[in-house]
Amino acid sequence: MNSIVWRNNSVTFLDQNKLPLIEEYITTTDYRVIVDAINKLKIRGAPLIGIATAYGVALASLELKHKNISEFLTGVEFVIETFKKTRPTAVNLFWALNRIKKIIDFDETSDAITTNIINEAKKIHLEDKIMCDSIAKIGQEIIPSNANILTHCNTGALATGGEGTALGVIKYAHKVGKKIHVYVDETRPLLQGSRLTTWELIKSGIECTLITDNAAAFLMQKKKINLIITGADRITRNGFTANKIGTYNLAVLAKHHDIPFYIAAPSSSIDLLIDDPEKIIVEERSAEEIKKINNIPITPAEVNVYNPAFDITPPELISGIITENKILRYPYQNNFLNTNVK
Amino acid sequence: MNSIVWRNNSVTFLDQNKLPLIEEYITTTDYRVIVDAINKLKIRGAPLIGIATAYGVALASLELKHKNISEFLTGVEFVIETFKKTRPTAVNLFWALNRIKKIIDFDETSDAITTNIINEAKKIHLEDKIMCDSIAKIGQEIIPSNANILTHCNTGALATGGEGTALGVIKYAHKVGKKIHVYVDETRPLLQGSRLTTWELIKSGIECTLITDNAAAFLMQKKKINLIITGADRITRNGFTANKIGTYNLAVLAKHHDIPFYIAAPSSSIDLLIDDPEKIIVEERSAEEIKKINNIPITPAEVNVYNPAFDITPPELISGIITENKILRYPYQNNFLNTNVK
Repeated sequence: MNSIVWRNNSVTFLDQNKLPLIEEYITTTDYRVIVDAINKLKIRGAPLIGIATAYGVALASLELKHKNISEFLTGVEFVIETFKKTRPTAVNLFWALNRIKKIIDFDETSDAITTNIINEAKKIHLEDKIMCDSIAKIGQEIIPSNANILTHCNTGALATGGEGTALGVIKYAHKVGKKIHVYVDETRPLLQGSRLTTWELIKSGIECTLITDNAAAFLMQKKKINLIITGADRITRNGFTANKIGTYNLAVLAKHHDIPFYIAAPSSSIDLLIDDPEKIIVEERSAEEIKKINNIPITPAEVNVYNPAFDITPPELISGIITENKILRYPYQNNFLNTNVK
Repeated sequence: MNSIVWRNNSVTFLDQNKLPLIEEYITTTDYRVIVDAINKLKIRGAPLIGIATAYGVALASLELKHKNISEFLTGVEFVIETFKKTRPTAVNLFWALNRIKKIIDFDETSDAITTNIINEAKKIHLEDKIMCDSIAKIGQEIIPSNANILTHCNTGALATGGEGTALGVIKYAHKVGKKIHVYVDETRPLLQGSRLTTWELIKSGIECTLITDNAAAFLMQKKKINLIITGADRITRNGFTANKIGTYNLAVLAKHHDIPFYIAAPSSSIDLLIDDPEKIIVEERSAEEIKKINNIPITPAEVNVYNPAFDITPPELISGIITENKILRYPYQNNFLNTNVK
């Protein structure tokens, strides 16, 4: 399954808001459709946002390449800035845009630059697929041969350019014959667990059970969970990890119940520029995500809402960070500096 | 606001499933309507379930009193057994039924027994109201004069015969002039926080902010919560506390962040017969509560679901249990035996 494809100078992506009831692909040559899809979470998952953003800039450069070179460059820069405003927490977005910016050679023609941007976007996509494979292979060593695993949000093929990060590890362990059962947090407010992760696991033939986020602690208390794995949207160079709201909750519960808690993420999720978790912008999303479900109000109309989309787990609560190169261990700073994590 | 009223040999109750959008009262003389309302959570909250059950048996006795005494007694016994099967975790239900059973004098006429049952049910209701007032007054001492309080589920006038347990404490502290802001967990799966608690707090003029259950840990990490208070559905004599799923989660988080965690409950919620938490039956509810919202599916049709309605918090995580008599402190066993908790 591919959640995004570049073909004939257009992008085709799966509208994840319609899953699991409707499997609908959207094909576009308009970067604005990609911006909107990222804003509305039709395209989501930190690595996939990075890929979609790169393809979005590629579409924009195709649209702009008939203008003069100055207008072309200004236009591409404007589109890059537009993408930066979509989802502030996922570092992969900024990482992908930086890669695109770096290969823009101001001495070349708009035609040549466009070709380079398209190739760089394809490369980002392909590399992410390879990184997923590598994370899966490296990560599977932490999965016992008979495991009940808890996961949060969606970190599979729907979130990446390949088979996934945390879910990629789980799928690979299943493929090599381990007996796996996955408890899936529904992941309020946007229910990526209910809607996306169960759908992917069922497609992969992996046994799973959906729970409310509230039930995770009770399962840990009853010793039903051997291991927790989630993805990441941004990791500071000393290991503070921003991920879907509710992840930090699980990390605290894991510590209390002495359960290993792992993060799986490509090195593009590691932000070597910061070590202060306060510097990570935590996206606050619309109150409507909590006040309405399926567009039907469930609260008094006038209620105040606080809706942070992410939280930040401190490094001491993380048993290991599985990257495409190796499993990093606490204290993370030294690991990051001594390995070829980019 | 009264969530249940006995008037002219009939029961009028607020259909809590329709809140907050529709404020609809149902009047009935049929105990079966009460059984159905408890099963479907139109009537919910441990103390209110106890009251409604007592009134339900009163309605049944009115329906049966024209039969001969043997048929009358068999009929009433059948109805008591029917109510026992509704919600197995809330001890108040069994406590109320036991009170009704105790006042049935087999030597009396069905007319006299019916009158006694009605009076006992009214007494249970009135006593609950007085207990709420007492819990509120005793409990308010734990509320700082400027407090950000987190609560879970609904424990107010909608859950009791009076102003509430945990929410009663909060309302009373507000009434005596403390500056209160309440963070309300939405409380998946049935969203009692979103639907009921915000509605009650707004009606009471108390500032509140709705959050997903997933956001509670993040708020604690950011030092936005001074205190957590919830209700209870059953407390063992050594302080293990069954309450809405997600409560144990909060208790673990409270310990990790060094935040006081209180339970507020009438002594009728204390089950002096058991000290083994494994003996508390944790009600498992329908998968549909998680698979559908507003009757619209949000998951793959074939997904497995685990939906426990309650969890159990061990005594060492509970800073205090606020009853109508006093605030009990760990270790609870001695407290319960040395106080006039019934």
